[in-house]
Amino acid sequence: MNTLGKHYRITSIGESHGQLVGVVIDGCPAGLKLDMAHLQKDLDRRRPGQSNITTQRNEEDQAEILTGLYNGVTTGAPITIITRNKDRDSSKYLEQRWTPRPGHADYTAGLRYGEHQDPRGGGRFSGRNTAGFVMAGSVAKQLLRGIGTNIVGYTQQIGEIISPEPTDFDHMEENPVRCPDPVTAEKMRKEIESARADNDSVGGKIRCIALNPPKGIGDPIFDTLEGCLSKAFFSIPAVKAVEFGSGVDAAGMRGSEHNDLYAVQDDEIVTITNNSGGILGGISTGTHIVATITFKPTPSIGKAQRTVDLRTKEETTIRVEGRHDPCIVPRAVPVVEAMMAVVLADYEIGAGMIPRTLGDI
Amino acid sequence: MNTLGKHYRITSIGESHGQLVGVVIDGCPAGLKLDMAHLQKDLDRRRPGQSNITTQRNEEDQAEILTGLYNGVTTGAPITIITRNKDRDSSKYLEQRWTPRPGHADYTAGLRYGEHQDPRGGGRFSGRNTAGFVMAGSVAKQLLRGIGTNIVGYTQQIGEIISPEPTDFDHMEENPVRCPDPVTAEKMRKEIESARADNDSVGGKIRCIALNPPKGIGDPIFDTLEGCLSKAFFSIPAVKAVEFGSGVDAAGMRGSEHNDLYAVQDDEIVTITNNSGGILGGISTGTHIVATITFKPTPSIGKAQRTVDLRTKEETTIRVEGRHDPCIVPRAVPVVEAMMAVVLADYEIGAGMIPRTLGDI
Amino acid sequence: MNTLGKHYRITSIGESHGQLVGVVIDGCPAGLKLDMAHLQKDLDRRRPGQSNITTQRNEEDQAEILTGLYNGVTTGAPITIITRNKDRDSSKYLEQRWTPRPGHADYTAGLRYGEHQDPRGGGRFSGRNTAGFVMAGSVAKQLLRGIGTNIVGYTQQIGEIISPEPTDFDHMEENPVRCPDPVTAEKMRKEIESARADNDSVGGKIRCIALNPPKGIGDPIFDTLEGCLSKAFFSIPAVKAVEFGSGVDAAGMRGSEHNDLYAVQDDEIVTITNNSGGILGGISTGTHIVATITFKPTPSIGKAQRTVDLRTKEETTIRVEGRHDPCIVPRAVPVVEAMMAVVLADYEIGAGMIPRTLGDI
Amino acid sequence: MNTLGKHYRITSIGESHGQLVGVVIDGCPAGLKLDMAHLQKDLDRRRPGQSNITTQRNEEDQAEILTGLYNGVTTGAPITIITRNKDRDSSKYLEQRWTPRPGHADYTAGLRYGEHQDPRGGGRFSGRNTAGFVMAGSVAKQLLRGIGTNIVGYTQQIGEIISPEPTDFDHMEENPVRCPDPVTAEKMRKEIESARADNDSVGGKIRCIALNPPKGIGDPIFDTLEGCLSKAFFSIPAVKAVEFGSGVDAAGMRGSEHNDLYAVQDDEIVTITNNSGGILGGISTGTHIVATITFKPTPSIGKAQRTVDLRTKEETTIRVEGRHDPCIVPRAVPVVEAMMAVVLADYEIGAGMIPRTLGDI
Repeated sequence: MNTLGKHYRITSIGESHGQLVGVVIDGCPAGLKLDMAHLQKDLDRRRPGQSNITTQRNEEDQAEILTGLYNGVTTGAPITIITRNKDRDSSKYLEQRWTPRPGHADYTAGLRYGEHQDPRGGGRFSGRNTAGFVMAGSVAKQLLRGIGTNIVGYTQQIGEIISPEPTDFDHMEENPVRCPDPVTAEKMRKEIESARADNDSVGGKIRCIALNPPKGIGDPIFDTLEGCLSKAFFSIPAVKAVEFGSGVDAAGMRGSEHNDLYAVQDDEIVTITNNSGGILGGISTGTHIVATITFKPTPSIGKAQRTVDLRTKEETTIRVEGRHDPCIVPRAVPVVEAMMAVVLADYEIGAGMIPRTLGDI
Repeated sequence: MNTLGKHYRITSIGESHGQLVGVVIDGCPAGLKLDMAHLQKDLDRRRPGQSNITTQRNEEDQAEILTGLYNGVTTGAPITIITRNKDRDSSKYLEQRWTPRPGHADYTAGLRYGEHQDPRGGGRFSGRNTAGFVMAGSVAKQLLRGIGTNIVGYTQQIGEIISPEPTDFDHMEENPVRCPDPVTAEKMRKEIESARADNDSVGGKIRCIALNPPKGIGDPIFDTLEGCLSKAFFSIPAVKAVEFGSGVDAAGMRGSEHNDLYAVQDDEIVTITNNSGGILGGISTGTHIVATITFKPTPSIGKAQRTVDLRTKEETTIRVEGRHDPCIVPRAVPVVEAMMAVVLADYEIGAGMIPRTLGDI
Repeated sequence: MNTLGKHYRITSIGESHGQLVGVVIDGCPAGLKLDMAHLQKDLDRRRPGQSNITTQRNEEDQAEILTGLYNGVTTGAPITIITRNKDRDSSKYLEQRWTPRPGHADYTAGLRYGEHQDPRGGGRFSGRNTAGFVMAGSVAKQLLRGIGTNIVGYTQQIGEIISPEPTDFDHMEENPVRCPDPVTAEKMRKEIESARADNDSVGGKIRCIALNPPKGIGDPIFDTLEGCLSKAFFSIPAVKAVEFGSGVDAAGMRGSEHNDLYAVQDDEIVTITNNSGGILGGISTGTHIVATITFKPTPSIGKAQRTVDLRTKEETTIRVEGRHDPCIVPRAVPVVEAMMAVVLADYEIGAGMIPRTLGDI
Repeated sequence: MNTLGKHYRITSIGESHGQLVGVVIDGCPAGLKLDMAHLQKDLDRRRPGQSNITTQRNEEDQAEILTGLYNGVTTGAPITIITRNKDRDSSKYLEQRWTPRPGHADYTAGLRYGEHQDPRGGGRFSGRNTAGFVMAGSVAKQLLRGIGTNIVGYTQQIGEIISPEPTDFDHMEENPVRCPDPVTAEKMRKEIESARADNDSVGGKIRCIALNPPKGIGDPIFDTLEGCLSKAFFSIPAVKAVEFGSGVDAAGMRGSEHNDLYAVQDDEIVTITNNSGGILGGISTGTHIVATITFKPTPSIGKAQRTVDLRTKEETTIRVEGRHDPCIVPRAVPVVEAMMAVVLADYEIGAGMIPRTLGDI
């Protein structure tokens, strides 16, 4: 339900317009000196209002640790991290609660929970809950870095604009869309602004890479690396597709073209290409793990849309006012990274690659 | 690990060249009069050797129930269903066990299990294990039919050949590729034969639809319908991408184009389009659930390929002889259907939509 | 790890001398109007300092809801309830952290977590964490009451003093030991005071009964009612034994004496006796569910005890000063009730006896 | 449901009078050369008909491996082990299926599964399913032996006859009751024969010890060693109580008497006494783990007993004929050992103390 993972297990708590959103992390090894600045930085990358192409909801999104640390070091106990909600204006949501917004979860949430779900700001179904994901992911990233793995995500596509394959990630955070190529980034920014100018929104893709992952992680048959990663990615609102390596392009390829051949490099067995996305048989090859995640255009748009009044079952029209992102992709980059980090940490703790205690003080 | 699901829980057992492959189903309600002919028919759709575009391994694939039935009716106890392996020729696999086949799990299986995994026919990593999936799926389909849901899958793409949107599924089983459009089917068949003639293989896509699913199934945040379905699909060997509804095309769309508007039809609230693939906020809308699954080209090809001898770490060449499918897609259709059925049954039993006891004799 | 249950799932958070202790409840149906006074009353029954036979640590133990409610009603989202720690004096614990207290978890916590666990007040291993259990249990009790089941626990034994079988529970809360028989209660109170006067402590037993439980709950083989209840009871610190019905006395009995015979009463099938404790084959018979839980004497005693300095591996002596209960049993009564309520709610939600949505507003 | 454990996970399959009973083990490390003679010996200790104080049902109980081994060595894949049912006479059960046998699960099985459960020989609720437990336990014992831990169980009480504390276990298997003290064993044997002569049955206790367990296994709060062991023990039919260390006697003790003091022996920290049963705070101290399990008298007795006809709801009388054990305790010893072994293996694999691959061939 609201818990993901077996060994590094995260539980999401909170509501968009409640007191807070947050996460409980269970299974984090004892002995990690938590880098709070790193955690806050990841949270800031997801924060609303960070640039003029994002929603203008104004939240400080300050991470606060409630449990699980002693003298700044993890103890092996559950870690509770929250961020308090400040800029809550629920009036629009209450006005529109009987006319479900197209593309949002309003209608299905009502099917599932009756009339009791919290309608303010999307409640449990709000993208705001991903702040908790990012905090859990930042702790996971710190664990992964300890064994040499880095996770990096970037904007690969906005609308029809596609980024070239990046050669480095140095300039990615210098533009508001998080595309490593400055020229493409500028085009993407304009595409987003154009969508907003039209009272519309636009979709896109994020590519996320685990650089230098351990070899041999992943479990067979049902708990494959792809399966567990994809389940985690689909928990991010608006995701419509998850691909690994060659992804949907594999359908059009021949085996002789798709197979990654083996070679020896510096006495290590490597694959020459990486159509597999670093995974074979659900288990990591040691090559970079590469996933591509498609986001639909933000369903909140200013244009009038046809909907139904749930009380009268009569057709009517809705115009979603208020503050929203014309494109969710740039802010979703740290969220995608977080989910990849959480899943990899889960496997690596399970496999004993990250020990249960990180050494004594 | 080898178990999937919470309420309708399946455990995969067996090896490609061991005595058997099979499945244990836990959580099937008591009182289902099992239709064995239906189960066998699904198994036959997956069977090797069913047409001249599949592998010529000759297996009868006869389903056999070992536990969980009394007088042909389920008792609520675990159901064990197996199919015995007959046509086992392991010699090729033993010859090549130290030179991993590109695109296969040989190399990663060794990383994960050391030298102990069963190398015969791919052992646990063989597609043959999906016979167990199909048997579990057939039981699940019978449960779903009881509440009015049907699952249908078809071949949507082979290589570059793409099927038009089908208007019905009546003629799908009349051609060996399982494409509902006879003209496209013939082109696809030729594409597969051309790949085989080249000692090569080809990829493709399967679309799978749950017709008339219940409204309001799915759980929030981490146990979304998309997440659990995708995890199940990625347990099928060779899957590279999972899409729902608009899928990867959503990236290039505007919100005004992508949002499915609400309307009233026969006093029911419906969506006019189905870009969402029948799921919003991880919960079913009641519209058809639509998933598209990409398969890579079969990694077994007759062409010589570069690989490494694991014992000497020297580069060498491998030619994968023996019997294999030039395209796995046609035989994978019932497997994809099975995984969708298993996941939906799991949710519906959990939600009490399928009761724990199906009525007394 | 720190999570219990499948359908009504509780996660324990917090530390004895950290900011708070609390619980996250996942799976509580939407639509429960939470009775906060009831919850606070249960918490007060567990509160330190409630009488002169308990520890004098002074905590208000005020329940505070952080997430999961909207207008005082559950929404189906995770419910976070905490109580903040106020009266924290960690000095004694820090002084003694290298000399494990006999009978406490100090030594084993060090084995498991290295030097990182929070030593203040027992940290994660403190009985204080059971405040979270009580809050989760109170919500569960409110769900159970909705289908007619009440949970009642009482002190059945203190030292060698054993309560007669109670005829009612009316006066149980009028004495500080929570024994339904006033005369026995007074003897028990004296036994506890005598232990304290000796700088010692004393053990006891709690009996806990589910009155009027539903018939047919419990799952076969591994998820038996006894198994899941006992696992929950053993999560309470100091528990040494769990019995159902006849319990350890069954060893000395004959079958003809132990078997509960069936009869018909008011057109209902009932058992005449209840040696089974209301459970057969892991499934409830509909008769009261009866469990008896043995608590060891509090390990914290004022007498000097032999121990070892972990740094030097030299034998030394410890005297556990500070505030502690000479007998934990009276305060543990609401904790035992809570665990029974949590487990029963878990089964009943799983079985659909408590629906996922409790009706619309 | 029918699965226990997280890392060493067992799934029970089969019915008393179906084709077979068995078990699927998931998570057994690759590389264990399975000692089939050891496994068969454990199964023989549980076998019916092994002496004249057990049931005379005649079963060979031959273990048969269906999956998971290659060249006699585990591969990391699920291991399926079965034993086929031979001596099946279901006639008595079918005659009596509408008049539930007192003390059996007949009545509750009907509540839970309606009329569909398999009534032959108790179906899923038969003690015969514990043959699968024993096979899973024998594999677990072989893993534990690899790290120096042995599991030994013995009959500690039959009726009112209690065994003295054993000094060794050398002669335990030389008598049919499995009591280490020959004089007490003879008294116990007579007590069982006396019960049978009376057309009655008798209860008892088994003590089970893990000799030389690793230090520091067990998880905090809900997944305590006691909790997980007790859940496993309560899955054995007829268990009424589970105690650790001092058990129910702890209720009558003072803290100064109960606390196990620490000392240094051969440079190791040890406890002088073992009232804790080798567990503190849910985590092993390294001292022997000691559990005592109470079994009720076999509910099947030849005496006439009052019951109800489920079809007519009229009271009637039943006499349970056929073959049954006058005391289940002697045959349950290997079952109790098996459950302890399974749970400890689960923890040790989870903690990485038993590696995922046991070394290359």
